Amino acid sequence: MKLALIGLGSVGRGVAHVVKNDPRFKIVAAADSKSGAVNPDGLDIDRLLQGKKETGRIGTPDWTAFRIAAEVDYDVLVEVTPTNAETGEPALSTIKIALSRGRHVVTSNKGPISLYYRELESLAEENGVALRFEGTVAGAVPIINGIRNGLAGNKVKALFGVLNGTCNYILSRMEEEGLTYVQALAEARDLGYAEADPTYDVNGTDAAIKLVILANTVLGMNVTLKDVQRTGIDRLTPEAIRMAQSTGQTIRLIASLYPEKKDLEVSPRLLPEDDPLVLSETLNAVTVETEYAGDVTFIGRGAGSVETASAILSDLLYIHDKYGF
Amino acid sequence: MKLALIGLGSVGRGVAHVVKNDPRFKIVAAADSKSGAVNPDGLDIDRLLQGKKETGRIGTPDWTAFRIAAEVDYDVLVEVTPTNAETGEPALSTIKIALSRGRHVVTSNKGPISLYYRELESLAEENGVALRFEGTVAGAVPIINGIRNGLAGNKVKALFGVLNGTCNYILSRMEEEGLTYVQALAEARDLGYAEADPTYDVNGTDAAIKLVILANTVLGMNVTLKDVQRTGIDRLTPEAIRMAQSTGQTIRLIASLYPEKKDLEVSPRLLPEDDPLVLSETLNAVTVETEYAGDVTFIGRGAGSVETASAILSDLLYIHDKYGF
Repeated sequence: MKLALIGLGSVGRGVAHVVKNDPRFKIVAAADSKSGAVNPDGLDIDRLLQGKKETGRIGTPDWTAFRIAAEVDYDVLVEVTPTNAETGEPALSTIKIALSRGRHVVTSNKGPISLYYRELESLAEENGVALRFEGTVAGAVPIINGIRNGLAGNKVKALFGVLNGTCNYILSRMEEEGLTYVQALAEARDLGYAEADPTYDVNGTDAAIKLVILANTVLGMNVTLKDVQRTGIDRLTPEAIRMAQSTGQTIRLIASLYPEKKDLEVSPRLLPEDDPLVLSETLNAVTVETEYAGDVTFIGRGAGSVETASAILSDLLYIHDKYGF
Repeated sequence: MKLALIGLGSVGRGVAHVVKNDPRFKIVAAADSKSGAVNPDGLDIDRLLQGKKETGRIGTPDWTAFRIAAEVDYDVLVEVTPTNAETGEPALSTIKIALSRGRHVVTSNKGPISLYYRELESLAEENGVALRFEGTVAGAVPIINGIRNGLAGNKVKALFGVLNGTCNYILSRMEEEGLTYVQALAEARDLGYAEADPTYDVNGTDAAIKLVILANTVLGMNVTLKDVQRTGIDRLTPEAIRMAQSTGQTIRLIASLYPEKKDLEVSPRLLPEDDPLVLSETLNAVTVETEYAGDVTFIGRGAGSVETASAILSDLLYIHDKYGF
């Protein structure tokens, strides 16, 4: 199966790593924001990245993502560039080009899926191809497959998730070590768990975007970011957490969703300490409250290079098996 | 999609309940151990069960499970009779008849799958049909789909599971209330969580059978019950649990599996109290340690009528979609 890999950051390198030794896959084109390379016999991504250290480029500026999407002979476009939460671009255009050409798309990019899922899904259907995006929510945790297939036939009554690893790290450190918010955030930055500008993480926007994706893609809703009530964790004090602890509870940033009431919210909530959603470090988790299965919880690593690549790999194998490669 | 429902105990009634209002399904035949009924236009299971209260039968003794499997025109045989762990019969024969006739099979029966998975899977393949068994392990928790599809492409390095709800209930009550094993078992019996003869549950056999199913079906192994080292929970004292608690730990019956070492074991183990596998009541859970995704944990209800039916429903919908009904 011939892959065009758009994006060579952390996730893109993870994808290159996991498909490298799998004879079912061949990366025939790759691009970062500055350049691209094409080889119908398969590219050696490690060598391209090595070359980048010397030249600043992985290939030639002529091979842009758009041109690769439009001209190269690939089976699946793997779009793993950084999320643009406002417009979804340039990923949105790249994905549309691929789908319009009748090529499958796998992405971990939250922008296009949270903003234009219905349009993209229609485009995929019209062209008889798959659009897959397991990596957009909760990293390595197979939550989209879990709800769509594992719990197929169940009406989802409610969904509760820990969908932002940065916030979970900060809150669990405030809880375990009595750190202030500022101290815990600094620690998260030092460890690479928080970005230089952590606004989208700590004010609940990142979790809200993932909630919108789950709502629209697996729960049949039609909502936008504006429909999600958001409260961040940046005002939380160690005292609030200590008070929670004194009653056997703790505080986590919870994304919640009640499909029938069209009620979507991201906010810090009190949880009993033995709740499956109370986790330490950067773990993510989702509890799905269903009609027949009862509560089912999925827990795992919500981010990371090879972890997100794992989700992309499962999407690639779905396409591989379903479309008879 | 026309279903033949073999078994009308708790799970069978759950299946009848969940498919009742779904226009995609029609139960055209049903049998319990004494009698059966057939109607190409669809049976009303509630009425059959009502009739059974008066006559002791749901239909006529002529319609045995075997005869239904062999003669009725159905698309999927749903086999949900009680597990026979020694021979797999009579479910094994019923399933073979269906597969040989080119009919799909969905089962929650651990006997045939733990004893003869390879033979049955070959038979299904030869006849171009599906053999599905999500309900055999961990009830409503979609663990087979989770490993096969959600974590597709990942090598499983190890697997740890709480696969027996009865034991989990007993241990969590010994922990929370300081009960003795005998007291907690009596409580589990009163609540219907333990059978009259709980030997298979408390000596680890039930969990070991589920471990064998996971090993052979989703981890590519070829093992039998004899390959599982088993230690039960019946010798555990409240003192042992108190000692564990004094070090921030607790005791759970854990089924573990290391595919490369071919190491399978069911035994009471010490776990940190914040381990995702430390759950209360009758919950089941599985943690899968993988190459790329890291640790992924699935938690939910391991038994119950409608909960197991939920797993069967996901299998039915898989067949419905894959085979174009």
